[in-house]
Amino acid sequence: MTPDELAPRIKSGERRALARAITLIESGREDHRAQAQELLGLLADAPGQALRIGLSGTPGVGKSTFIESFGMMLTAEGHKVAVLAVDPSSARSGGSILGDKTRMERLSREPNAFIRPSPSQSALGGVARRTREAVALCEAAGFGIVLIETVGVGQSETMVAEMTDLFVLLMAPAGGDELQGVKRGIMEMADLILVNKADGDLKPAAERTRADYAGALHLLRRRPQDPEGFPKAVAVSAVEDRGLREAWDDMQALADWRRENGHFDARRAAQARYWFTEEVRRGLLARLDRDPAMRARMTDLGEKVAAGELTVAHASAEMLAALGVTA
Amino acid sequence: MTPDELAPRIKSGERRALARAITLIESGREDHRAQAQELLGLLADAPGQALRIGLSGTPGVGKSTFIESFGMMLTAEGHKVAVLAVDPSSARSGGSILGDKTRMERLSREPNAFIRPSPSQSALGGVARRTREAVALCEAAGFGIVLIETVGVGQSETMVAEMTDLFVLLMAPAGGDELQGVKRGIMEMADLILVNKADGDLKPAAERTRADYAGALHLLRRRPQDPEGFPKAVAVSAVEDRGLREAWDDMQALADWRRENGHFDARRAAQARYWFTEEVRRGLLARLDRDPAMRARMTDLGEKVAAGELTVAHASAEMLAALGVTA
Repeated sequence: MTPDELAPRIKSGERRALARAITLIESGREDHRAQAQELLGLLADAPGQALRIGLSGTPGVGKSTFIESFGMMLTAEGHKVAVLAVDPSSARSGGSILGDKTRMERLSREPNAFIRPSPSQSALGGVARRTREAVALCEAAGFGIVLIETVGVGQSETMVAEMTDLFVLLMAPAGGDELQGVKRGIMEMADLILVNKADGDLKPAAERTRADYAGALHLLRRRPQDPEGFPKAVAVSAVEDRGLREAWDDMQALADWRRENGHFDARRAAQARYWFTEEVRRGLLARLDRDPAMRARMTDLGEKVAAGELTVAHASAEMLAALGVTA
Repeated sequence: MTPDELAPRIKSGERRALARAITLIESGREDHRAQAQELLGLLADAPGQALRIGLSGTPGVGKSTFIESFGMMLTAEGHKVAVLAVDPSSARSGGSILGDKTRMERLSREPNAFIRPSPSQSALGGVARRTREAVALCEAAGFGIVLIETVGVGQSETMVAEMTDLFVLLMAPAGGDELQGVKRGIMEMADLILVNKADGDLKPAAERTRADYAGALHLLRRRPQDPEGFPKAVAVSAVEDRGLREAWDDMQALADWRRENGHFDARRAAQARYWFTEEVRRGLLARLDRDPAMRARMTDLGEKVAAGELTVAHASAEMLAALGVTA
């Protein structure tokens, strides 16, 4: 299908057209890339700005179960929900061991939901770029809520925070002395900390953990983009559908407050600036791969470094001089 | 102290001189940077190649307790053990909430141990670079074992794997259906999976989890750099000192086999090549920050993107053209 044919189908909310368009933007082929850019241009005027929610949590906290329950609640209320993922570790292998097919079974059958696993790219930057474009496609297709999930602690969280309006951290119940494991950098990114598994035997532990995180959040300086009471820690149970309503109310309240106080648009503007800088960086680095003489020089110097004949510092200085960059 | 004064003290194994030298390499000041490079040059001929062991695990798996028990066992046998950390999330805030001072109390009092928290840098690349240089300093100071710990799932693990001879993944006991959370990319990096907390109530769960990971590892194709039986999953208890001896025996057996079969040196050569490429990239990007005209142009285009007057794609193409890079 050409971009001309895809665009109206996406605008009318056809999920298959959306899936094909995302496959197009994920392609590494030059001609696909050009078509993807054309398509994004055709959809630039499409109405609808989704609420973009970032969701992070390490393996084992019940992220898939949470997204399924949360997504089912939202679709039952008539929302259209898209779920995307940013997972740099899928680059090596093309996905998690079990893959995404077996996850979120109920939600994937829901007509008002759209689920897409992480693109497999060689670098986190590539994954993030494609995901950012996929968000635009989902918005054009009329999805009012876009959830972007990511795994673990690390730079993928920063990337997701840079493309979302709200950032939610999903945690498991833990012993009190394990709280130190949450790095302040991540805490400072989170708008909402959800302590999952507040059910059965783990319920008291989840409540204690919630109180611990609430206390820790309280120690951090209030950010200008937060109303009173945020960031907040809430105990939820994805398997028992508990606390999900409250969590959604909190997300809406926070988004509304930020919209009214200019922080919502300011964040999106800062994000646009951020991605512009990233694209320029990416373009600069691409030069190394395209120029055959430079590539040959890189290979030669790399071999000398590998053989121990040159240090990393000396070889890189020589290469940068060849590229016209002085230290 | 000048590099000339520091070098002999480091070579004689003075921990305070080593700590000062690492502070020097972590400094962002231009003159410190030059001194650090001079110092590294002076130490380049120092004998001693340490066994470099990468250790990763998400918060809550008991990483600090493991390192303390494992480190105490090694120092008791006469080994000199250095512990470094790569934690990109410390960039924002300068460390974890509780900081590193309260961790590994016994090991930090041990004369044959040296513990250093993660450097605070603005980017993971900076953290990795400093840590790589700190490894060289520790080796010059006669540390025969260098442990480099990192947190969580993400690019910091790749960075640590790129500077170590062995990569160990520390896991917590989990329910069988949580196994899917471990991404194949991480599994493929691991040489040894240690399932911690094989004590008390969690002992049966730890053994089940160990068996699950062993089964998962078995599904992966054998890598050329592994002898029969590796990668391996072992249950350990850091609090009860159980399985640590076996884990160390495994690490040594693996390192010996790789040395005998050429894989050890091949890995180090590939790593040297990798860091050379990274340094060239870093240098290319630094150009953007140094040229005032280019900086002004970036700012101007960035504002237009933020205001929605230009798309990210258009603005970055314009900037790259100004930098002489054609698409």
